[in-house]
Amino acid sequence: MSDPFDHDDEVFGAFAQLVRWRRDIRAFRPDPVDEATLRQCLELAHLAPSVGLSQPWRFVRVRDRERLERVIASFERANAEALAATDEEDRALYARLKLEGLRDAPVQMAVFSDEQTTSGRKLGARTMPQTRAYSVVCAIHTLWLALRARGLGLGWVSILEPEAVHAACDAPQAWRFIAWLCIGHPEPAANETPELQRKGWERRLPLDEVLKTL
Amino acid sequence: MSDPFDHDDEVFGAFAQLVRWRRDIRAFRPDPVDEATLRQCLELAHLAPSVGLSQPWRFVRVRDRERLERVIASFERANAEALAATDEEDRALYARLKLEGLRDAPVQMAVFSDEQTTSGRKLGARTMPQTRAYSVVCAIHTLWLALRARGLGLGWVSILEPEAVHAACDAPQAWRFIAWLCIGHPEPAANETPELQRKGWERRLPLDEVLKTL
Repeated sequence: MSDPFDHDDEVFGAFAQLVRWRRDIRAFRPDPVDEATLRQCLELAHLAPSVGLSQPWRFVRVRDRERLERVIASFERANAEALAATDEEDRALYARLKLEGLRDAPVQMAVFSDEQTTSGRKLGARTMPQTRAYSVVCAIHTLWLALRARGLGLGWVSILEPEAVHAACDAPQAWRFIAWLCIGHPEPAANETPELQRKGWERRLPLDEVLKTL
Repeated sequence: MSDPFDHDDEVFGAFAQLVRWRRDIRAFRPDPVDEATLRQCLELAHLAPSVGLSQPWRFVRVRDRERLERVIASFERANAEALAATDEEDRALYARLKLEGLRDAPVQMAVFSDEQTTSGRKLGARTMPQTRAYSVVCAIHTLWLALRARGLGLGWVSILEPEAVHAACDAPQAWRFIAWLCIGHPEPAANETPELQRKGWERRLPLDEVLKTL
């Protein structure tokens, strides 16, 4: 079988563009997300790498208003604590950042890792069981890029209390909470610069600061 | 600014192809990897999402033979234990699987998460500090797809003792070991089916087994 990508600059170019224009989205237009498009993106996420082919990702879409309110309340507690713990000179800037789309995005989804899945029969996960959670992250990142390619946006909310989200979703004991995802049509439009950089919170590091050879 | 991807089927199609043809590679040709190509792929990985724009990924390329031998010895211990712990009816199949390219791949790299980075000033990581490790996984998955688009292969080795790899790399105390990566030209050629499925270890799950709505 010949390799479809060897020397194929178009595929690399498209992927590079996707990576450069992916953003964490916190503001959404109220328009609904096309269900077939969402499904198509989840189908791709489901092809992500996983330790021992264990596919431990579990996606829980939350439409129930009462459950979502419990997640929003968890964000509000966690964010108030984060604000209080932030250095005084950063606090006013922190308070101005919009950090989630929990009330705006038309699709809200929790993602868990099934820590007791029998798929993969523990291959690769005995000395590093955390690779199950890492597999789930690969699926989320695949979903993120797929949605981006479809003109949709994803925001990953981590300012949450994992136990509160776990309870709000009635998740099985064996599941570990990995991420809360807000999905919809992004507002404002596309940007090549991360929002936290535009707002003066942090900047990109030079690559050589994170690379070394031994 | 208009969105470059809205209704752009070509970018989605290229990305979908990349996701479908990505494999975990364990057998490599001995040909060296072009350094400019590797650098270009690392530049894309460095644009991955990270909690609070903390960019906690630290890539350590290991060329030193003595350090690599310590990592290989760690794999051999961890793999012998994994074989012994595998159910008897699976053991012969497990023993036949080739699970790493530690001696074959021309590029060997450890990836760590800097748990004490000041970048991002802890934004998003207070209630969920594990999101730093998850950010590193996003960078690794970006690198994986970028290399794939260039006709190169990556294998993620997790059958390792994290402390042994940490020590072999003289990594700072604050760094957490995330993954060992083997990178090179894949042998055999491209395949749309995961190796663990072809060899009868595990199969893909139907998407609806991992999706639900509340």
